[in-house]
Amino acid sequence: MVSAAFAQTTAPALPDPAATTVQAMGWMQGFPPPPDKQLTFDNPAVNVYPRTRWTFSHIRELVPTANVWRGGAAPSPLPKAARAPDLDSVRFKAMGTGEELTFAQSLERNYTDGILVLHKGQIVYEKYFGALTPERPHIAMSVTKSFVGTLAALLAHEGTLDPASPVTRYLPELKDTAYGDATVRQVMDMTIGVHYSENYADPKAEIWDYARAGGMVPQGRDYAGPRTFYEFLQTLKKEGEHDQAFAYKTVNAEVLAWLVRRASGKPLAQLLSERIWSRIGAEQDAFFMVDRIGTESGGGGLNTTLRDLARFGEMMRNNGRAANGQQVLPKAVVDDIRNGGDPAKFAKAGYATLPGWSYRNMWWVSHNADGAYTARGIHGQTIYIDPKAQMVLVRYAAHPIAANAAIDPLSLPAYQAVADALMKK
Amino acid sequence: MVSAAFAQTTAPALPDPAATTVQAMGWMQGFPPPPDKQLTFDNPAVNVYPRTRWTFSHIRELVPTANVWRGGAAPSPLPKAARAPDLDSVRFKAMGTGEELTFAQSLERNYTDGILVLHKGQIVYEKYFGALTPERPHIAMSVTKSFVGTLAALLAHEGTLDPASPVTRYLPELKDTAYGDATVRQVMDMTIGVHYSENYADPKAEIWDYARAGGMVPQGRDYAGPRTFYEFLQTLKKEGEHDQAFAYKTVNAEVLAWLVRRASGKPLAQLLSERIWSRIGAEQDAFFMVDRIGTESGGGGLNTTLRDLARFGEMMRNNGRAANGQQVLPKAVVDDIRNGGDPAKFAKAGYATLPGWSYRNMWWVSHNADGAYTARGIHGQTIYIDPKAQMVLVRYAAHPIAANAAIDPLSLPAYQAVADALMKK
Repeated sequence: MVSAAFAQTTAPALPDPAATTVQAMGWMQGFPPPPDKQLTFDNPAVNVYPRTRWTFSHIRELVPTANVWRGGAAPSPLPKAARAPDLDSVRFKAMGTGEELTFAQSLERNYTDGILVLHKGQIVYEKYFGALTPERPHIAMSVTKSFVGTLAALLAHEGTLDPASPVTRYLPELKDTAYGDATVRQVMDMTIGVHYSENYADPKAEIWDYARAGGMVPQGRDYAGPRTFYEFLQTLKKEGEHDQAFAYKTVNAEVLAWLVRRASGKPLAQLLSERIWSRIGAEQDAFFMVDRIGTESGGGGLNTTLRDLARFGEMMRNNGRAANGQQVLPKAVVDDIRNGGDPAKFAKAGYATLPGWSYRNMWWVSHNADGAYTARGIHGQTIYIDPKAQMVLVRYAAHPIAANAAIDPLSLPAYQAVADALMKK
Repeated sequence: MVSAAFAQTTAPALPDPAATTVQAMGWMQGFPPPPDKQLTFDNPAVNVYPRTRWTFSHIRELVPTANVWRGGAAPSPLPKAARAPDLDSVRFKAMGTGEELTFAQSLERNYTDGILVLHKGQIVYEKYFGALTPERPHIAMSVTKSFVGTLAALLAHEGTLDPASPVTRYLPELKDTAYGDATVRQVMDMTIGVHYSENYADPKAEIWDYARAGGMVPQGRDYAGPRTFYEFLQTLKKEGEHDQAFAYKTVNAEVLAWLVRRASGKPLAQLLSERIWSRIGAEQDAFFMVDRIGTESGGGGLNTTLRDLARFGEMMRNNGRAANGQQVLPKAVVDDIRNGGDPAKFAKAGYATLPGWSYRNMWWVSHNADGAYTARGIHGQTIYIDPKAQMVLVRYAAHPIAANAAIDPLSLPAYQAVADALMKK
C-alpha cells in the first residue's frame, strides 16, 4: 500500500496542474457556454478532474442544497498579521521520495483551490486558485464528517446522545443491519464491521451506491435502488466484528448524522447553524447537499468558504472559544477530540502516511510532538490544527486522486515545515 | 373575464387557509418524514396548494440554484417605527363583490406567507405565516421579471443595451424565432407577438414546456424536448404582430435575461449581486433557480427574504437611493419605470382588476392618484410602491390560484386602504 500510494503522487499520468486550470480549460464561459465546455450534473465526467476544479466551487448550481445560516451577527474579525514570515519559500522534504520542494511548489502540485494559514488567530497566508474566491463555498467532502462528529460529541457532553447506548435506542430502523448490535461510540470512532467498500477507484464499490441513493451522482434512467440516504443505510450488512479496528467508511458518518438528528430533533443544517455556524462569526452561510427528501449528506456534503472553515478551526484551537469571544463548545468536547482514539485500532487500518495516528469523533489525531489533529476530505480538503505552533491551516483542493495517501506526502511535511517556521518567527 | 376572476376568489372550492397551514399539514417533519408528508421535486403535486405553503419557502432544497451574494458590507438598517397605526383593523371593500373586510382578514384569505409594510422607510407592519421566517428566502415568481427589467433599464441608461436595436443584434440565435424582427424595447415592455400560452390552468400551455425545459418542474422519464432555457427560446414562433398590445408572457423576461447577460457579459446572478443586491444593504443572499447548464430563470426563479425585498422596494421609492445612502440606480431609471408604458396597449390585454394600468420595463404601473407601481408574481408575490403615501408593501404568498386576478380583489383595495391610513397618521 505504501509504495502504491507514493508512486501515485509522482505518476506521469497525473495531469499538469498549470495546463488544466479553470481558466485554461474555459469551463462554463458564455451564454450558453459551448457544448464541450458545459458542466452538467448528468455528465458522469463532471466529478472527474479537471472538471472538478470548477464543480467543487459550484456544487449548489448542480444539486439541491440546504442552507446553514450564519445568523444575524457581524462576522468575527479575521485580521491579517502585520508581519508574516515568507511562507512561500519554506522548504520541506516529501514523504517517501525525499524530494525537496517549497511550500509554494507544493500548492500547485497538490491542485490546491485555496489555502489559508492562521497564526495566533491572524492570517499569515491566504491564496486562491481555480474557481475559488473568498466568498464562494467549496465542497468540504469528508471534512463534513468532523462537523457531524463534533456535534455528536457536543450532544454526548450535554447528555442528549449517549455514546454507550446501542444505536438502535435512537434508530430502531437499523435493527436488522450492521448497526443492530453496535454502540453509538463505535459509530463515532468508526470501529464498525460493515460490508461496504470506500474504494473510489472501483465503480462497483458501495460508496457509489451510497452516492447514487443520496442523489450526489446521477441515478440513471433505470435505477431501482434506494432513493434516500435513510433507505440506503437500512441495506447495510455486518461484516466482521465491531470495536476491533478503525475502518474508515462514509456510511458511519451518515448513521451518526441520523443519530444526531434523532437525538436533537433538528435537521443537521439547522443544528449546525444554531450550535456552531451562527456562533463562530462566520461571514457566509454554508450549505449541505441534500437527497430527494431534503436529508443533508453528513458524510461529505458540506460546503463552506475557506475563511469560515478557518474560523471553525481557530475556535477548535482555542478550546472551543471563537474569535468573537463566544464559548461555542465546552473545552471538554475539544479535549476529547484532541486526545484522540486508540492508536492500536487505528494502526490495523494500515495508513502508511499516518503512522501513530488515531481517530476520534470523526477527527484524525496525529499524536505528534505538536499535538496536531485534522479533518480530512478526499481530493485534499483539510483542516490542520497545530496547537503547539498556534497554527490553523485550511485547504480546499481538487487533486485528481480520491485518496489522501496520494496527497499527504506533499502536504503533511509541508504543514509541519510551515508550523516550524511560524514557531521560529 | 371579470366575473370569472371575481367568482374564483369566493368559490367554495378554495381550501380553508387555517386548516391547510404548514403546521396543520405536518409537511416534512421527522427523520425521515412519513411518506405521505414528504415533499419531493419528482412529485407533480409538490407545486400544488397546500404543499406550496412549504415548498415556496424551501425551493433550494428541491432544485439547483445560483447564489446572489449580498456582499461584504453590514446590512442597511430597517428600523421599526416607534409608533405605527393599527393596520390590522384597517377596513376596505373587496373589488367586485363589495364585501367589507379588515386588512388582517385579507391576509389569511389571500394565503399570505409573509407581509411587510414600510412607511417612510420604517417598518409599520411585519408578519410571517406558514413556513416563512425573516431569514428564509421565498420564491418571488414573476417579481423576478421586475429585477431583470430594472437591470435592463440600467444597462440601457448606461448605453450597454440599446432598446431601439433589434434583438438579433445581441442574440443572433433568435433570428428564426418570434424575436427575429422584434426590438429590445418590445421585449422590455412585453409587446411581442409570440405563440405561447401563459395559462397555468391548461396543462398543454407552453408555460409548462418552458418550465420543463428549464428544469423547474420534472421533465419525466421519456422527455425529449429542449433541456435548457436557451434551447426552448429558440423554438418560439411568431403569432400576430409586435408592438400592438401588451401580452404578458414569461418567455419575454427570459429573452430579456439573455439580452442582459450578453450585453453585460455576466451571469444574471452576478450582475444582480454587483449592481443591486450588494448595494441595497441586503441582510441575506438571494438566489435563482437554474437550469442544467446553470442559467438563471429570469422569468420567475428569484428567491429573496421579505425584508430584502422591502429594501429593494424602498430603494426604488427613494429614486434609486438605498437606505444606506448609496445611489444604486440613477433617478432617471426609476422615473422611466414609474412613468409607465402605454395604457392603450395595456388595455387591449383586458385585465379587469387593473383598469388604466400600463407595463414598463417589466413593472406594472397603476397610474392612480398615488402613482403606485408594482412588481407582481403568481400566487400573490408583490412589491407595491405607493410614492404619495411614502409606502412600500411587500408580500409573499401561496394562493391556490396561479392568477393575480383571483387575488387582486382582496389585496389592491386593502393596500390602498393601508396607504390612506398611513397618510392620515
